[in-house]
Amino acid sequence: MISRLLARLDDLRPPLPASAHCDLPCGVYDPAQARVEAESVKGCQEKYQGSDDAVFKERAVQIKEERADLVKHHLWVLWTDYFKPPHFEKYPELHQLFNEATKAAGASGTKGSMEASKAQGLLDQIDKIAGIFWETKKTA
Amino acid sequence: MISRLLARLDDLRPPLPASAHCDLPCGVYDPAQARVEAESVKGCQEKYQGSDDAVFKERAVQIKEERADLVKHHLWVLWTDYFKPPHFEKYPELHQLFNEATKAAGASGTKGSMEASKAQGLLDQIDKIAGIFWETKKTA
Amino acid sequence: MISRLLARLDDLRPPLPASAHCDLPCGVYDPAQARVEAESVKGCQEKYQGSDDAVFKERAVQIKEERADLVKHHLWVLWTDYFKPPHFEKYPELHQLFNEATKAAGASGTKGSMEASKAQGLLDQIDKIAGIFWETKKTA
Amino acid sequence: MISRLLARLDDLRPPLPASAHCDLPCGVYDPAQARVEAESVKGCQEKYQGSDDAVFKERAVQIKEERADLVKHHLWVLWTDYFKPPHFEKYPELHQLFNEATKAAGASGTKGSMEASKAQGLLDQIDKIAGIFWETKKTA
Amino acid sequence: MISRLLARLDDLRPPLPASAHCDLPCGVYDPAQARVEAESVKGCQEKYQGSDDAVFKERAVQIKEERADLVKHHLWVLWTDYFKPPHFEKYPELHQLFNEATKAAGASGTKGSMEASKAQGLLDQIDKIAGIFWETKKTA
Amino acid sequence: MISRLLARLDDLRPPLPASAHCDLPCGVYDPAQARVEAESVKGCQEKYQGSDDAVFKERAVQIKEERADLVKHHLWVLWTDYFKPPHFEKYPELHQLFNEATKAAGASGTKGSMEASKAQGLLDQIDKIAGIFWETKKTA
Repeated sequence: MISRLLARLDDLRPPLPASAHCDLPCGVYDPAQARVEAESVKGCQEKYQGSDDAVFKERAVQIKEERADLVKHHLWVLWTDYFKPPHFEKYPELHQLFNEATKAAGASGTKGSMEASKAQGLLDQIDKIAGIFWETKKTA
Repeated sequence: MISRLLARLDDLRPPLPASAHCDLPCGVYDPAQARVEAESVKGCQEKYQGSDDAVFKERAVQIKEERADLVKHHLWVLWTDYFKPPHFEKYPELHQLFNEATKAAGASGTKGSMEASKAQGLLDQIDKIAGIFWETKKTA
Repeated sequence: MISRLLARLDDLRPPLPASAHCDLPCGVYDPAQARVEAESVKGCQEKYQGSDDAVFKERAVQIKEERADLVKHHLWVLWTDYFKPPHFEKYPELHQLFNEATKAAGASGTKGSMEASKAQGLLDQIDKIAGIFWETKKTA
Repeated sequence: MISRLLARLDDLRPPLPASAHCDLPCGVYDPAQARVEAESVKGCQEKYQGSDDAVFKERAVQIKEERADLVKHHLWVLWTDYFKPPHFEKYPELHQLFNEATKAAGASGTKGSMEASKAQGLLDQIDKIAGIFWETKKTA
Repeated sequence: MISRLLARLDDLRPPLPASAHCDLPCGVYDPAQARVEAESVKGCQEKYQGSDDAVFKERAVQIKEERADLVKHHLWVLWTDYFKPPHFEKYPELHQLFNEATKAAGASGTKGSMEASKAQGLLDQIDKIAGIFWETKKTA
Repeated sequence: MISRLLARLDDLRPPLPASAHCDLPCGVYDPAQARVEAESVKGCQEKYQGSDDAVFKERAVQIKEERADLVKHHLWVLWTDYFKPPHFEKYPELHQLFNEATKAAGASGTKGSMEASKAQGLLDQIDKIAGIFWETKKTA
């Protein structure tokens, strides 16, 4: 539902939503980077479930691990580098949201499981963060 | 102009355009990953031009180099892993487009210059590739 | 002064309690990993200040950037992977401490400055986190 | 036993003398970096032995491999960058100690085995190197 | 056959064939870098086939994946950074050769299989590219 | 001179000298990997000397640093993973050769200088190691 809503908000965004981060800072941030990798985590889990080739399944475990690491990295960057004290005042749940989302990408979440429902939960958490992110951009 | 057009096509895309790649393959690809880093390259060039702090400018050169490497990587992945022989038959210009875009990200393009026009040229090339990419997705 | 003291205590240490992290999880964590890199950041800043060799100074800027990235990474790992909900309840300041420490390692802190006082501030923040970390270990 | 003892001494430590290395050089070195990763290798082996979850065990193999690589890297840095000709004269066994310790981290040691005794052997070798390291620091 | 021929041409090459690449550019390129990693991929496949140690086999799958990534990277660098428009005019098959060789290193080739014949096919493709590479060097 | 000699010995080698390493081990090693990167280091130094473009020169410093790191890495791998106790008995100078060559790639050598003579000295040291390496292969 909220994801549907976000999707719609997406359509209203100006042409170049996807954007990178570097700690120059270049000033470019986008939750899409974390979402992309979380989609890939989900794809690895689904393909793992749908295969009975032992080597392929092993590769899925391995590659999912790397992608989950990237999810964590992109979220950490947003939490430390994009969000500023006024944001944390306005959205007091932000710290916990990020802490839980990065945990959901890690050992207790998508790293420790081959169930695609885990990645879906992570995607939902990223969407919540993205919702706040785009709100702050509008008022910036 | 064409970039404006692409932007408009962007609005028609389904909800989760941003998507990652891994060579499992997880089946998730998106030109947004290359574009994000190219935006960052442009940001580094613009901030370099606007600053007279020698250390900051040096950091801009250094960080831009890494971001330009990521642009090349994301484009190479699309060229090798997403596009298949039928695509190359239908779009015979694809090989050259990718070769020129990755060159434009490298030493003869954004790596070798601090002018933001170079990154803009690269962004335009990525948009052309993205246009073809999304066309192939619709007919897939 | 305190650094002198630490150095002295150092001599009394047996060979090397320190411990690593991985997200298996292997269960091994230690704030020393972040501190080590922050010490290196400080060393780069001090050597930069003490040199008038342009190439050496450029290398100091470049290497400091990488080391500051490692500080951020090691702190993020502690925040997401070691600390659990009960910790955040007991130490409600933890989220902010980590957010500020990782910011202090980044563009607004040690990345954006060649003054060793910036790295010293970062080291002090890491020490606060380490103090809490070791308290939680004792009661664990 | 000795590990118990170290753990106890650990509690007495002030927050974190440990220190990093970079090849500026920043002048900061510490065998703790290698030891930390070797502890993690051991943790991966122990958790592998204690689990009967096939995916978890596969992840343990994978993560241990990366951690063992880090052990080798940190030891190589000490051998090349910290130790100087006078050290090798005073401690003629140093070359062999490092060669054997890095081999013990590799395919013939902790990489090629899931037995924690292998990691313990590696930890003992790192402790010998650390003993010499701290001796040279006192006389420096 | 052609590989035998290339080997012979190899003997005619000047003393320092092996050469690196960086995108300064330093001007140093060599297909040997890709070939080295492809040899390693083949070695991993052969050792996998010859072993019945489950952990060893898992490590072979994991390490082969990384080596195959390096093959792709080194080939992409040659395609984008070494070869220039006049080369593509003279050797119109070059784009396809590189596209197929990098695909052969990926999921549909050496990544997705533990058969050494896949790596041999990749090596043959690298040799074709190397043959053209050395021809262009002679006329340069 | 000795380099000329090595070059000649090179001609006698079987067709596929270039070879990679991984710590499976795949059994493939080749000093060419270190040499390639050392050539690149030299190229960076020469292009630095020949340029008066400040940004280009900064990039040369930065890229040379990374390439020198790769030289060190490839040499360390040979020292730990390829050479075995019988080799060190037969060539007692090997430990020192490797220690000096990796130091020559580092801060006191090619990292700390923009003079191509430093890289040439490093290349000569790599050639000495390569000479011993190929001798051991013949008798293996």
